[in-house]
Amino acid sequence: MGKIFDSKHAQAGDPRFVRKMIRQQKYTGHTAGLAPGFLQGNLIVLQGDLAMDFFRYCQRNPKPCPLVGVSDTGNPFLSTLGVDIDIRSDIGSYHVYRDGIHTDTVHDISDLWCDDMVAFIIGCSFTFEQALVEAGISLRHWEEDTTVSMYKTNIQTVQAGDFGGGMVVSMRPMSMADAIRACAITARFPQGHGAPVHIGDPEAIGIRNIHQPDFGEPTPIRANEVPVFWACGVTPQHTALRAKPPLMISHKPGSMLVTDIPSYQQESC
Amino acid sequence: MGKIFDSKHAQAGDPRFVRKMIRQQKYTGHTAGLAPGFLQGNLIVLQGDLAMDFFRYCQRNPKPCPLVGVSDTGNPFLSTLGVDIDIRSDIGSYHVYRDGIHTDTVHDISDLWCDDMVAFIIGCSFTFEQALVEAGISLRHWEEDTTVSMYKTNIQTVQAGDFGGGMVVSMRPMSMADAIRACAITARFPQGHGAPVHIGDPEAIGIRNIHQPDFGEPTPIRANEVPVFWACGVTPQHTALRAKPPLMISHKPGSMLVTDIPSYQQESC
Repeated sequence: MGKIFDSKHAQAGDPRFVRKMIRQQKYTGHTAGLAPGFLQGNLIVLQGDLAMDFFRYCQRNPKPCPLVGVSDTGNPFLSTLGVDIDIRSDIGSYHVYRDGIHTDTVHDISDLWCDDMVAFIIGCSFTFEQALVEAGISLRHWEEDTTVSMYKTNIQTVQAGDFGGGMVVSMRPMSMADAIRACAITARFPQGHGAPVHIGDPEAIGIRNIHQPDFGEPTPIRANEVPVFWACGVTPQHTALRAKPPLMISHKPGSMLVTDIPSYQQESC
Repeated sequence: MGKIFDSKHAQAGDPRFVRKMIRQQKYTGHTAGLAPGFLQGNLIVLQGDLAMDFFRYCQRNPKPCPLVGVSDTGNPFLSTLGVDIDIRSDIGSYHVYRDGIHTDTVHDISDLWCDDMVAFIIGCSFTFEQALVEAGISLRHWEEDTTVSMYKTNIQTVQAGDFGGGMVVSMRPMSMADAIRACAITARFPQGHGAPVHIGDPEAIGIRNIHQPDFGEPTPIRANEVPVFWACGVTPQHTALRAKPPLMISHKPGSMLVTDIPSYQQESC
């Protein structure tokens, strides 16, 4: 967490202050731990017909792509997610992709924003991770301060237009007893990837080497532990890039949108 | 339930057989009780930019508008909801609205279907009602074979384009003890309207006369009972009509789309 927040700890808990610092580019880092208790989300921006197809892709694949907000077409303000959220400036670092290739990392996308763009905000695992920790289930990547291990799998997503292909999953090792509790706990958060998609044998879902994640860092698995796999918000990014849209913008992994929505509102009811 | 199903009881449980009879216009009635255990849904068909706005309206208002399926643009086949579902013919009776006015009731919309149309299928309360009955909570409108009471309220939905306004709710009377259990049970079905939006005083949500529903039939409330209100799938229909789209098509109330999706898949996880 950046110095700017260390020195003003109380304000780091206020999502509006966090966004203000980000908008002013006084902070461009990762958002883990900032504004705890408030929903954070992944960003995907697409244009024209691709936006409608991607909207359908998310509707058909709610576990990897739980939509928590969708902008009006051409309108960069996400009024359903908080006060004065301008998606052109309120994320610390953006990845710009052209024809499916990452071409730029920028801190503001005002010069790229167009009238036919739609911003999609997709729920992330921060909410359920907090719930797991509060239930006494420790998370190795929290303890070791690493990025969670993520893998491409052969679990097929449901196609929509050019969007489709295998799901990306995140993995957290724990005892089987904790894994069972984790199923019940995370099932309560369908807007944050919900219950796991798999427990145990990595090969059953097409992962050849559990020690070599496709994204993030390796996570040691102890003798009494099983790997527990959740649908991951990297899936839509990965899928969208395979579709090679002329222009797509996402957050830089880790630099999420911090919203004003209390995390508990992601609970199923 | 029509004779055609009475005489072939086993087949009435098969969603594909039900849709076949409907497609052939051998059955055009209501679908309550047909293919039990399979998800049924409300239909809204809209065109062009209105489709995208309505998609956003559903995303922003998941309690009244839980999307269970969205067609590809111009494609009448709902492959994510079952085998060979053709939305142009597989609902028993359709309501056609022009500029927000109900102009026709038809049994097939093939001649109206266009390349820019999108069909939205919205979850209904059949799934959670079945779960309530299985939990021993009796439903008056089931016992008395009436249509559930529905009311316009002052609970505002979140706007999207021209879509917005007050939520429509359905009401089921029960003891407070049952109402509490009903909250827990229906919360498990976010794709079927989820937990109630209100219990008790009708005036608190803008209902002046509980004995005069805006839609459906009156339901007697006994001395030891409270009215329990759920977000209702009539909301999007009501909202869409206020927006006066040039052409909108929905199912005739009660004549739902019968899908191949097992109802339990609507449970949150």
